[in-house]
Amino acid sequence: MKVGYLGPSGSFTHNSALKAFPNEELIPFANITEVIKSYEEGLVDYAIVPVENSIEGSVHETSDYLFHQADIKTVIEIIQPIKQQLMATDDQKVIEKIFSHPQAIAQGKKFIKENYPEAKIEVTASTAYAARFVAQHPDKPFAAIAPHAAAKEYGLTVIAKDIQEIEENYTRFWVLGQQSRELDLPRLASKVSLAITLPDNLPGALYKALSVFAWRGIDLTKIESRPLKTVLGEYFFIIDFKNDNDDLVGYALEELTSLGINTKVLGQYNVYRI
Amino acid sequence: MKVGYLGPSGSFTHNSALKAFPNEELIPFANITEVIKSYEEGLVDYAIVPVENSIEGSVHETSDYLFHQADIKTVIEIIQPIKQQLMATDDQKVIEKIFSHPQAIAQGKKFIKENYPEAKIEVTASTAYAARFVAQHPDKPFAAIAPHAAAKEYGLTVIAKDIQEIEENYTRFWVLGQQSRELDLPRLASKVSLAITLPDNLPGALYKALSVFAWRGIDLTKIESRPLKTVLGEYFFIIDFKNDNDDLVGYALEELTSLGINTKVLGQYNVYRI
Repeated sequence: MKVGYLGPSGSFTHNSALKAFPNEELIPFANITEVIKSYEEGLVDYAIVPVENSIEGSVHETSDYLFHQADIKTVIEIIQPIKQQLMATDDQKVIEKIFSHPQAIAQGKKFIKENYPEAKIEVTASTAYAARFVAQHPDKPFAAIAPHAAAKEYGLTVIAKDIQEIEENYTRFWVLGQQSRELDLPRLASKVSLAITLPDNLPGALYKALSVFAWRGIDLTKIESRPLKTVLGEYFFIIDFKNDNDDLVGYALEELTSLGINTKVLGQYNVYRI
Repeated sequence: MKVGYLGPSGSFTHNSALKAFPNEELIPFANITEVIKSYEEGLVDYAIVPVENSIEGSVHETSDYLFHQADIKTVIEIIQPIKQQLMATDDQKVIEKIFSHPQAIAQGKKFIKENYPEAKIEVTASTAYAARFVAQHPDKPFAAIAPHAAAKEYGLTVIAKDIQEIEENYTRFWVLGQQSRELDLPRLASKVSLAITLPDNLPGALYKALSVFAWRGIDLTKIESRPLKTVLGEYFFIIDFKNDNDDLVGYALEELTSLGINTKVLGQYNVYRI
């Protein structure tokens, strides 16, 4: 079985893929759209993409593609704590330049200021690219901020552990596929993600949509508006909620439809934690 | 009087600044955080930043900074239609490379494919940078996708007009300042923007917050969740609504507070259209 993921090797998505599918063939793709397309085109059986980070917010490339273009379901969610490591080749005694993705740099800023105040910072497209670049230049005084998996992948040594400033940093990953699988990881919850579009002629439409969930006691875990890409002020909403009772969820979806609210189920999935 | 804006000269923000403050000294800054900081530090009297685009969605750098760090009010909103122009130096007969910001490239993709199928695409940090770069290399077969203002600013000629694919493309700009001013532009509405954080111990808290507006017939024009940057699944919400009656809005804010819902007024402003 083949599983596509947001690469390169050593990325956080790769780590999720390794934990969820330890015995399958994992194939990296260069960006989120290409990961999803690889699944649409049947090149892989599952595809793994990041969907939300607790600090940065939603990954719009994922949610917009799934709403606007794809007819694909999320069958598993994986929550991964994001921990950043400072890494270099073994011989490096001096660090003059530190490479990483802007988010990882922001997370490690305080640590770098205190411990490497003279180091220059260089931005890369991803943390894994930063690690690979540092590994390719073993003679230079370079270091990278990247996940543990990247140190392993590119043979670098972690010289400072868990340098991220905010302890609580998690990313949600979605596994797209035909059907769910049980993973050998702790299961946290069962959830549903919906995209809804509200009719123009229904005053207080969002309020009414939320009341469908509120009076049934269905717990919303997230609501987000995204532009419909038509006119300013027209949105679709992504709503995540806990699924403790399939019947109740079914009735809620029926009621939304009867109100004239358009729904697209993005996924119905178990949530696992690495 | 001094007005800071997201530069460089010829940017869409610059155009908004020129229309709103035609007789004032306009000062460009390199990124959104620096624009807002220039106002915080008293270097300028007003600051203009983009806050939302009808296709790309919210500009998180703006809303996150205003919620998390700043105690600044929005006093004017400006809505500007975004139209993209293909421009080059006068002598260019052949176009082999086209430079622009990724969003403008996405908007012009169809036009380029039909008219310049052989041209290479190069990404720049902003449309105005693309125009400046092309102007600096008059001997090269280069073109830029950028706003009209950039052609004027850097002495380029528009060789194809309004090449954007989706006609309805608007950006909202916020003017930060001490007090409002009347602009010599068509006024569309009066609005309030709130950031609210919901208490943990209030079940269905978002639903209750929305009901404060719904039963008063206050029209929400936008709702968006953004991560609180604490744990995954904790959000603050940005709510925009029409202000047709100051008293009604005052009562709504009081009721939110009495429910234990924390509110921060981001602005109370007139909306003008360029």
